[in-house]
Amino acid sequence: EKASQLQTQKDSLTQKLQETERRNVELESQLLDLEQRLENSELESHSFRKSLRSLLQLLDGKIFELSELRDSLAKLMEEDSS
Amino acid sequence: EKASQLQTQKDSLTQKLQETERRNVELESQLLDLEQRLENSELESHSFRKSLRSLLQLLDGKIFELSELRDSLAKLMEEDSS
Amino acid sequence: EKASQLQTQKDSLTQKLQETERRNVELESQLLDLEQRLENSELESHSFRKSLRSLLQLLDGKIFELSELRDSLAKLMEEDSS
Amino acid sequence: EKASQLQTQKDSLTQKLQETERRNVELESQLLDLEQRLENSELESHSFRKSLRSLLQLLDGKIFELSELRDSLAKLMEEDSS
Repeated sequence: EKASQLQTQKDSLTQKLQETERRNVELESQLLDLEQRLENSELESHSFRKSLRSLLQLLDGKIFELSELRDSLAKLMEEDSS
Repeated sequence: EKASQLQTQKDSLTQKLQETERRNVELESQLLDLEQRLENSELESHSFRKSLRSLLQLLDGKIFELSELRDSLAKLMEEDSS
Repeated sequence: EKASQLQTQKDSLTQKLQETERRNVELESQLLDLEQRLENSELESHSFRKSLRSLLQLLDGKIFELSELRDSLAKLMEEDSS
Repeated sequence: EKASQLQTQKDSLTQKLQETERRNVELESQLLDLEQRLENSELESHSFRKSLRSLLQLLDGKIFELSELRDSLAKLMEEDSS
């Protein structure tokens, strides 16, 4: 009966191991998926910030050009009133 | 006959004086008219430049506000990437 | 004595005519001067408005470019959030 | 000897189960960590886009105000030249 008892324990352990390994596979798949999503999210965020940086530089240019236009107008009025 | 000659000269002078005085009145009227136009033109020009000066100040304000917006965007991107 | 009286009147008329003619010359000179000033003022005003028109067109361009930049930013944010 | 063999197999299974469970705990911890990072990243991204949206609205306002200023200038020049 000792052998029969050991066999029962062994079967139970085998079943528990299989469940734990299935859970493992599942967790690893979830991890891979999350890592992929995080990487995509970072790539998108990087690309987004790069585009934003371009727009910021364009905005810098527009503000500079508006300031030049403003200076031209101020100079024109100075000449006209003198 | 001396008297008759003098009378003729006097009549001619009187006529010439009248013509010259008419021309004078005409010139004075033209002068007044031109002075009025010049004054109006200067008043309009003054008012125009005053309005332009207001627009220049408004433009200054808009450029300043665009620069603040630009700085906010730059700061936002700095915070986000850090 | 009639001749002497006429002579006096003639002298007075001659003097008055000379004065009126001097005044005429003076008025014509003032007119010419004013006409010149008015013409210069109109030339300057024309040139000033021409420069202003150029600045207005530049301003139009800058506003259009800022609107394009704004649309790029809006489009970028739409893509990012979708 | 059957019992001894079974005991050996049971010990081996127990050890393997422990290792798999340790790996499970480790994977669950990694998952939690990644989920936390992804959530933070999304919160930051959400907050970033909210700030960007505010800036976009400010930019809209500035462009509108520049357009009004442009119209005032155009109107002023029209009045002046008429």
